[in-house]
Amino acid sequence: MIIFYRIPGDSPNMRKVSVMLAETGLPHTVQQVERQNDGQLAEEFHRINPNATVPAIIDQQTGVTLFESGAILHYLAEKTGQYLPTSIQARAEVMKWLMFEVANVGPTMLEVYHYLLTDTAELPDAVLQRYKSRLANLGHILDRQLSEREYLCGEYSIADIALYPWLLIWEDMTDVNLATYPNLHTWVNKISERPAVRAALKM
Amino acid sequence: MIIFYRIPGDSPNMRKVSVMLAETGLPHTVQQVERQNDGQLAEEFHRINPNATVPAIIDQQTGVTLFESGAILHYLAEKTGQYLPTSIQARAEVMKWLMFEVANVGPTMLEVYHYLLTDTAELPDAVLQRYKSRLANLGHILDRQLSEREYLCGEYSIADIALYPWLLIWEDMTDVNLATYPNLHTWVNKISERPAVRAALKM
Repeated sequence: MIIFYRIPGDSPNMRKVSVMLAETGLPHTVQQVERQNDGQLAEEFHRINPNATVPAIIDQQTGVTLFESGAILHYLAEKTGQYLPTSIQARAEVMKWLMFEVANVGPTMLEVYHYLLTDTAELPDAVLQRYKSRLANLGHILDRQLSEREYLCGEYSIADIALYPWLLIWEDMTDVNLATYPNLHTWVNKISERPAVRAALKM
Repeated sequence: MIIFYRIPGDSPNMRKVSVMLAETGLPHTVQQVERQNDGQLAEEFHRINPNATVPAIIDQQTGVTLFESGAILHYLAEKTGQYLPTSIQARAEVMKWLMFEVANVGPTMLEVYHYLLTDTAELPDAVLQRYKSRLANLGHILDRQLSEREYLCGEYSIADIALYPWLLIWEDMTDVNLATYPNLHTWVNKISERPAVRAALKM
């Protein structure tokens, strides 16, 4: 059994794990992490993730304790042999685009999210624009990558599962219509139709 | 032969690849990427990395083309069977701390670097402090992780190779003395003594 640690509500990083668990059909149970009075996640959860973020998992079968959504996707892919190819070329391609999400899309989105909630009177417009411009560039790169492929690396993989949840909030975060990226838009709609995705995200 | 694409000078992400190539002893050749007049990397390099960043590699033996330093480390580890364990538990641990660097330490450092170069008259102090505080927290997490282990995951691994170059610029970026993190400080010094590291970084 896999224990999936999460908090109430939704976040792109939690959604990655929800989708992966649904796609692989792995037996799992959800453990809600409590918050302390100061808003931080409960002290006992810090033993599972010293960085005090969700998602995290414990795999009771192997004893593996994991945080970092990218590491969780990689682990569940290796455990099940699903969504991460074994040929050296295809595997490298998936890891490349997984890292592209982990190092670029995710961190930039989290900055936009933070600054959208910041009092703009205290913040030069250039700060928020910096991250929105970066997202626009990342969107164009992803759109080009999808111009010749059905999924980011040909076959559906953990690179798609990692990226997809950010696209569900892309328009709200960037004020840019997804139709600006036609291939990316088609890709989002295709993934949104997958039964496991619909079940995981209660769409 | 592996072609290592880089630009003149040094950056933590390029240093990760330099160290990994030296540690594994893989035959490689360096290809300097030219800049256009506008400062961007040459258009032909965009075919290798559409995100127009270095490092990137091409492995002529397998035809694999990679960008994202985390993906390059993972690929070279799998190719050589070095610095990424095969047992499921030890492997998950390395991937977790590799992702911790890729998603947290690297992106935060790049923000600090950017804002240190920004005209501070135009920038509220809170913006730069946000990233410096985050780095201080990451430093404490890493220091605790190293309090019971010689390397981040016990044995020396790609998690160490990914993190180490950021520590070489930590004091300059954060104005915090590394002695604040005694275990991390010891770890940096130990890695700095490795012959492959010294050769790769010309220390």
